Amino acid sequence: MNKKTSDFLELKSIFSDELLEVGKVITDSLLSKEELVSDVGSYLINAGGKRIRPILTLLFSKICGYTGNKHIYLASAVELIHVATLLHDDVIDESATRRNKPTANFTWGNKASILVGDFLFSQSFKLMVKSESIKALQSLSNASSIIAEGEVMQLARLYQNKMLSLTEYEEIAKAKTAALFGASAHVGSIIANQPENIELACEEFGTILGLIFQISDDMLDYFSNPTASGKNLGDDLAQGNITAPIIIAYNNASKEDQNRIENIFFNDDRESKFEEIKSILLKYNTESAISIYVDSHYKKAVELISIIPYSAEFTPYLLGILDYAANRTR
Amino acid sequence: MNKKTSDFLELKSIFSDELLEVGKVITDSLLSKEELVSDVGSYLINAGGKRIRPILTLLFSKICGYTGNKHIYLASAVELIHVATLLHDDVIDESATRRNKPTANFTWGNKASILVGDFLFSQSFKLMVKSESIKALQSLSNASSIIAEGEVMQLARLYQNKMLSLTEYEEIAKAKTAALFGASAHVGSIIANQPENIELACEEFGTILGLIFQISDDMLDYFSNPTASGKNLGDDLAQGNITAPIIIAYNNASKEDQNRIENIFFNDDRESKFEEIKSILLKYNTESAISIYVDSHYKKAVELISIIPYSAEFTPYLLGILDYAANRTR
Repeated sequence: MNKKTSDFLELKSIFSDELLEVGKVITDSLLSKEELVSDVGSYLINAGGKRIRPILTLLFSKICGYTGNKHIYLASAVELIHVATLLHDDVIDESATRRNKPTANFTWGNKASILVGDFLFSQSFKLMVKSESIKALQSLSNASSIIAEGEVMQLARLYQNKMLSLTEYEEIAKAKTAALFGASAHVGSIIANQPENIELACEEFGTILGLIFQISDDMLDYFSNPTASGKNLGDDLAQGNITAPIIIAYNNASKEDQNRIENIFFNDDRESKFEEIKSILLKYNTESAISIYVDSHYKKAVELISIIPYSAEFTPYLLGILDYAANRTR
Repeated sequence: MNKKTSDFLELKSIFSDELLEVGKVITDSLLSKEELVSDVGSYLINAGGKRIRPILTLLFSKICGYTGNKHIYLASAVELIHVATLLHDDVIDESATRRNKPTANFTWGNKASILVGDFLFSQSFKLMVKSESIKALQSLSNASSIIAEGEVMQLARLYQNKMLSLTEYEEIAKAKTAALFGASAHVGSIIANQPENIELACEEFGTILGLIFQISDDMLDYFSNPTASGKNLGDDLAQGNITAPIIIAYNNASKEDQNRIENIFFNDDRESKFEEIKSILLKYNTESAISIYVDSHYKKAVELISIIPYSAEFTPYLLGILDYAANRTR
């Protein structure tokens, strides 16, 4: 394990008491007299996950000097939103496994996944209400809308059969992933009553972190060890989602290889072409090109650290968490 | 047109300015740079609908003496929650038409319906946030959770292949329909800062109204004129949903007819048995039995009127709206 991953694990251990409370609040939120609701909800919550979004909320509330206990409700709410979107995503993507286990839709069917997703989403709003912060509710309801728009955007692009630009990719990634990372950091600063410019810097840091996280995730879809990452290799290719590695390789490729990429992606048998696509990615050194791309975002996030309040205990972990997200690509 | 329907239409006309504002707020909420989002959202909003839930919010805010403009946001939010649940319901029920038009899922596919439902749901929370009332947010987020649980409850019952009791039916109907009616009335009283006991009476009135509305709806599924009601006759039978008319007929039926009802409902070819089920409903005078059942709820709602603040202008419409809901059965 390298230093970067261990920094994130250290943060998890620093927040272990708070994360335990978050876990309890989430478990209580899953309680339902309807067994199927509790079963489906718990299944996904207990499947693990990195808890990176609630950790962001906890981290930013501490950096901004918050000493109350309402950050627990907000940290639990962001995780519930995340899990609700996973339930719906897996229905949309027709996924059969997640984190090396059968998906909820595979186990209980699409209908239960849709409805339990709706339930978790509503429960997350109930938790936000407990924070009694209208501004936090505003931030998270806004992020939820953007996530749904981002998913529709991605779906609409699938039907267009055309190569995306990096700008278009970032627009989708910001909406479907980075908005919730941004809001997770944002509500941490909101609950600590920070001035507007600081709240915005916290949100922006979270957003960039989320974008880096998504780019890394898109790389893992081609280059990870599925047992370690819990991802299905080649899911994006199978679904026809055009992601950063593909766009970057395409932009560097010969006309002939560009045609090959297009032919593979805009055909129904793309699933069988995983090795061919991967060989094109390797041919154009996509891993190092992605590193450069990630670094440009990383630098922007680092610049924001000077605006965010300084905490001797917690500020160093801002770099740690950035490194953790960026490091997933390498 | 009878007196009872005209009372409801009169109320619509009294609130015509406010409903126009609600319409504008909803239209603005549907705006998205992603065309598919706006298209799917507007399709269902423009398909009409009675706007009974936003009217409840407007009515109760007026009865409780509210003079501000935040009731518009809340009335718009309850309608958006309703439309979001319709989008998901039609996916769950695999419905092909609603209000005499092809459903959104039939036109744009399940995936778009799921995601746009999520979007509308999030937008509804953004509108609630604009009301700046934590209590209203609490009421509506609670109702949203209960709706999702009610839908799961209904889904779970489908797999059990057993006759329901009226109590079990009411539990489902209260969750999937009456909770949002209750919250629609509740938030009208909340925004007017009423004492707890009055808020509860308003919520309870809305809940009973919703239950009556659902019972009527379940009757229409067997006895309506589909062109006038915009409903698909026999949907509940096709989906295997056991509703009030079936349970009441079953409770009055001979052992032999009880077996016939069970045989029809717990078999896959039930869709073809619409006329047979209807003849059993007629044989046991289900229409008049349902009237008696509805009346028992109606009386409970009427009793609540004495607790709700009196308004010379608006209180008479409480009876009007009850009559409108109850009248749909006859």
